[in-house]
Amino acid sequence: MNPAAIHAYLLELQNRIVAELERVEGRSFRRDPWQREEGGGGESRIIEDGDVFERGGVNFSRVHGERLPPSASAARRELAGRAFEATGVSLVLHPRNPYVPTVHMNVRFLVATKPQSEPIWWFGGGMDMTPYYGFEEDARHFHATCRKAVGSHYPRFKKWCDEYFHLKHRNEPRGIGGIFYDWHDSGDWEADFVFTREVGSAFLRVYPELVRRNWAKSWSEAEREEQLVRRGRYVEFNLLHDRGTLFGLKTGGNVESILSSLPPLVKWP
Amino acid sequence: MNPAAIHAYLLELQNRIVAELERVEGRSFRRDPWQREEGGGGESRIIEDGDVFERGGVNFSRVHGERLPPSASAARRELAGRAFEATGVSLVLHPRNPYVPTVHMNVRFLVATKPQSEPIWWFGGGMDMTPYYGFEEDARHFHATCRKAVGSHYPRFKKWCDEYFHLKHRNEPRGIGGIFYDWHDSGDWEADFVFTREVGSAFLRVYPELVRRNWAKSWSEAEREEQLVRRGRYVEFNLLHDRGTLFGLKTGGNVESILSSLPPLVKWP
Repeated sequence: MNPAAIHAYLLELQNRIVAELERVEGRSFRRDPWQREEGGGGESRIIEDGDVFERGGVNFSRVHGERLPPSASAARRELAGRAFEATGVSLVLHPRNPYVPTVHMNVRFLVATKPQSEPIWWFGGGMDMTPYYGFEEDARHFHATCRKAVGSHYPRFKKWCDEYFHLKHRNEPRGIGGIFYDWHDSGDWEADFVFTREVGSAFLRVYPELVRRNWAKSWSEAEREEQLVRRGRYVEFNLLHDRGTLFGLKTGGNVESILSSLPPLVKWP
Repeated sequence: MNPAAIHAYLLELQNRIVAELERVEGRSFRRDPWQREEGGGGESRIIEDGDVFERGGVNFSRVHGERLPPSASAARRELAGRAFEATGVSLVLHPRNPYVPTVHMNVRFLVATKPQSEPIWWFGGGMDMTPYYGFEEDARHFHATCRKAVGSHYPRFKKWCDEYFHLKHRNEPRGIGGIFYDWHDSGDWEADFVFTREVGSAFLRVYPELVRRNWAKSWSEAEREEQLVRRGRYVEFNLLHDRGTLFGLKTGGNVESILSSLPPLVKWP
């Protein structure tokens, strides 16, 4: 187990993703560094009002604390009261063109420690896509890339994603899904680190390509309208259901960074 | 205790409010009746894309169930497991002009029953205002009208409102407040019914007047922008904190009616 290697990889992943998105956008992302009072901090890389991305945030964070919050430790009794460090890259991109899907991706690594005990660690992450006007070919390509990245885990991680990104109050899926996983620890840290890097690479392979395919397609006001309305579902999911968002807001996280996942302009009709 | 009188009054209140707002708007509100699977229903009166009100909903509902939900009965042990009937009028109005405040008002009556026991009943309600560009004179007038309506309860109900409509994650008030109350039962049902009617009348006296004062004021794109951003706070409050919204969504309420409180167009900058 080598947290320094993870840390270095996640910073590199953030840089590679931002560099690739900047090539697509033709403009630089802004840097918003922030610190967390209870320990740690991060840097958000933000694009606003771009030609391709109406808003996007690619966030790196490394936070630590003296006690895992109960909501995080509830799932495994042996975690209760442990100190923790959580490192991750998390992104949401809201394209301007209704023919380009919104995307969410996250990879994270957690270590929970206690004096005189072995550390407990695990990986989590995933990616999922929310098209407004989807192309079946693009959806297939996205799912195939996810499948290739996680191999035999795919059926379980796909199902987990569908379950997690479900708007219970509307009984609607958020989008076309993808993969979602948590508590990932095969017992072989090196292998799981390789696995995480596969997920990062898969994102880099698939999403910029889908943006390039579609961002120049012409669209009408009716399609824009539909996009703004569907974005409302994204807000509803993130504020009503998303564990990461609610946990962040309830524990004094950086509000601007947490809410950078919200779309820039939204309609409720 | 006379639930039929309350029922009749609340329907009349909805009609009076809608009629007054229609005079301001110069156009009719739409009727959206709905039924709740577990019992009861209601009618929303909706205005969309009006000249004065970009969106508004004035909702009447009367719902009943065989068991008060735990979140409602937790506050008073003697309520556990009781059947209930809840009747109320609830409204949120989002004006188009940034110089006209958004407003929320609610009056409700609840009865919790159990065989061979006295019914337990109470009133709840309040009103609060969220200006984007406030005029001190208007704010004073709003608070003075609230004070007059609830008399000696005012300091407590004002404080309750400030505490309830607080965005904890941003440590910001939602607006300028007003009054909020719950579990209101002085022991004299007739007096409490009179009190509820005072709250309804106060709303009718004060808000349409404030709209008339300000709706024709000219505004710039910068003011519109600020309004759209501040509306984001309204969405955050309603989806993250508002008990009524969360309760409604979690118990299979009418999604469109519950979310008619959300602004029609919102920006997260």
